[in-house]
Order: sequence, then structure tokens, then C-alpha cells
Amino acid sequence: MDFRLTDMTDEEIAQDLSVVEPLTDSVRDLIDAVIRTEVDAEHLIAAREQIEAVVASLRAEQKPGSYGVPFTKKLHGMPYGNAAVGKRNAIAPPLEIEHQADGSATSKVVLGAAYEGPAGLVHGGISAMLLDQLLGEAVSRQHGIPCFTGTLTMTYLRPTPLGALRLRAETTGNSGRKYFVRAEICDADGPTVTAEAIMVAPANFPRHEELQRLRAQLAEAPE
Amino acid sequence: MDFRLTDMTDEEIAQDLSVVEPLTDSVRDLIDAVIRTEVDAEHLIAAREQIEAVVASLRAEQKPGSYGVPFTKKLHGMPYGNAAVGKRNAIAPPLEIEHQADGSATSKVVLGAAYEGPAGLVHGGISAMLLDQLLGEAVSRQHGIPCFTGTLTMTYLRPTPLGALRLRAETTGNSGRKYFVRAEICDADGPTVTAEAIMVAPANFPRHEELQRLRAQLAEAPE
Repeated sequence: MDFRLTDMTDEEIAQDLSVVEPLTDSVRDLIDAVIRTEVDAEHLIAAREQIEAVVASLRAEQKPGSYGVPFTKKLHGMPYGNAAVGKRNAIAPPLEIEHQADGSATSKVVLGAAYEGPAGLVHGGISAMLLDQLLGEAVSRQHGIPCFTGTLTMTYLRPTPLGALRLRAETTGNSGRKYFVRAEICDADGPTVTAEAIMVAPANFPRHEELQRLRAQLAEAPE
Repeated sequence: MDFRLTDMTDEEIAQDLSVVEPLTDSVRDLIDAVIRTEVDAEHLIAAREQIEAVVASLRAEQKPGSYGVPFTKKLHGMPYGNAAVGKRNAIAPPLEIEHQADGSATSKVVLGAAYEGPAGLVHGGISAMLLDQLLGEAVSRQHGIPCFTGTLTMTYLRPTPLGALRLRAETTGNSGRKYFVRAEICDADGPTVTAEAIMVAPANFPRHEELQRLRAQLAEAPE
């Protein structure tokens, strides 16, 4: 498990996100527009040329490889390239996750045309991706960071419509580094998909209590 | 299950794809560039403005809702908005699937920064999405179209690195409309993830033999 600290201060990170998040949102909008557009070939070709010019401008300076998951100096993860929650990743809806008082992780999300499988319905694999992430986040509440998925069992009760959905995940127990977790997706009429998983915490990473202690110390230190 | 026929001829469909596929590829490139770019705020803001102009030009004429899965007049599906294989969907890698003589469905894919979960590794949910699609395609060889996923059980043997991967799925049996299927993802060193699933064929859709017969008739008819 990579454990790289960023050089950026919290303020620099916030400033960076304030510019990059709207850009990522525009790319999400573009993904949807390309799927649904009915403009003629001439306009499609022009659109491609414009996009390639933007790509060239962005690639003038870039990280080698993937974004990775650097940590802030206060030990908070920055999974900004993550396929499900990444603030820089236009593939991610993004899933915004809340941790509830009862220990569950929840999310509300609206899935559009880009998440389709069967006509008008959410792709079964997208449901798996979103729940896999949420299951990891439910465990991270206990362990400090999202864990690796060991097994994931999805049960599709009925089709999940595109549109507004609610997600919920909770841990049901643990044994050493193994966490038992379950989750579901609901539309307005109730559950459409359920998941059960065993998540495995990375061996070489400090546990939640130790992370909390380190964070408290760092919060008092100058940057 | 939607069973809408397109008005387009095969030639018009091919012409449309010849323009729209390169556009989708450029958007894939853009997704990667936004994740990895290190250009300054001024350039990021300029990039966003340019992308919004492209979005506006594409939205001048667009389908309402999602792309759906229309069928050609010769009864071949057009899942161009599909999250895993859609030729118009920049979220899709896209997974290009081959049907082998032994009945299996296989794919080679190179996954970049946009498919990351843990640092440098494929998101567990992305592995689930790709295998879910491939499992459905393996069944479609027998049934005529991809089926709904009933249950999907993923077993993560070890982390899957970003980069070049091979995927394979095969049906192991069926009972009525239920198909039993298994699949795996391999890197250069062998399997990293396995999947077992029960896929369920839609009730109101012609079976493979009937589709083949209809297609043969239509192939001889003028458009």
C-alpha cells in the first residue's frame, strides 16, 4: 500500500479542488452530451478537434502514471483519481459519502445516461462498483482507510432505474483484519440491489485509533 | 425490455460510428488528462470554458433521456451508451469482446488512470463491472442478447494492477431462463479476480435460434 504524503498545504489542496472539480463536472457533462447528441458529422468532427486541443493544453504538465492516493500532512487520503469517488475523475458520478451516527455510510446519487446497461436501467456492474466503494467506506470508519475487497456478492432483486438513488452500507462484524459488510441500493420504491462483502484491511497500515491520535498531534503542528 | 428498431440503415450506422467513435476516444483521453494534469489554475479554467462550449454545441440537438439499446433492422443490438462496452460512452474502456469457438467470451483491455481504486491498482468495482458485462456476453452467445444479472459473486485473489489485462467468461450450464456463468481477470502472472454469476434471460424476448432465423430472413430483404 502506497503511503505518500503530498507537499501541498490544506489551503493549496482546497484551492486546487475549487478549480479542478468544476472542470471534472464539465467533463461529466461532456460524456453525457456525446452519448445523447444528434448533431451532424461536421459538428462532431469540430467537437473532437476542440477536445484534442484541450487535452494537449492539459498534458503540457502532468503526473506520470495514475493519480494514486497521496495523503495530506494531516493524514487524510486524497483519492482524487478514484473511479467511484474521485474529484478529478469524470467516470465517478461522483459518489459523495456521509458517515451516519449509527456507523453506516450512506450516499444519494443521480445516475444519468453514462451509467446505463439495459435500456433505461443502471448497468449491473455500475451498481457493483458503487456498492463496492460504499462498503469500503463503511469499513474505513472503523479501520481508518478503505480496505481491499476480499469477496463481494451482489443480489439483483429487480432492475435499478436510472435517476435518483439512495445507497447504504454497514459493517456487521469483524475478525482480525477481515470486516463483514452489507449494503443496498434503493430507488423510490425500496431496495433494488443488495451486496454482502468481506473487506480486508491492508496489513502495513496504521489502525483507526492510531491514525486518530496522529491526526490530533498533526492538527496542532504548524504546516 | 425495450425493443425499439432504429430508422438508420447499416451504412448510416457505420458512417455515424466512424465519426462518433474517435470523438468518444478523445473524451476518454480528456478524462485521463484531467486526472493527471498539473497545469496551473488559469489553464484549468480556460480548459473548462472550452469544454463547456463543446457541450453546448453537442446539445444543440440531442436525444431525450439515455441512449437505450435500439436494434438494427437486422436485429443486432446497438448498446452504444453502455457503461462497459458503449461506443459512445467515454466511461467504457471500451471492452471489445470476442466470441471464441469453445463458446467463451474473451477480451483484452488496457486500463489507465481512470480505473484506479487503491494506488496503482484497478478499482474492485471496475473489475466487477467488466466481468458483469463479459458474463452477460457469454450468455448472449447462447440466448441471443445479454441477460439481466441475478447474482454476481466476485472473489478477489490478489490486487489487479492497472495496465494490460485479459478477461474470459464461459457458461457452465443453464436451467430454463437461468444461465450459470463464470469469469476471470488475468494479468501477466495469471488470475487476479474470479466471478460466478446467475444471469437471467428476459422473458419477453425471442431466443437465440429464433433471432438467428429472423436475421437470416432480414439479411435477404431490401432495407
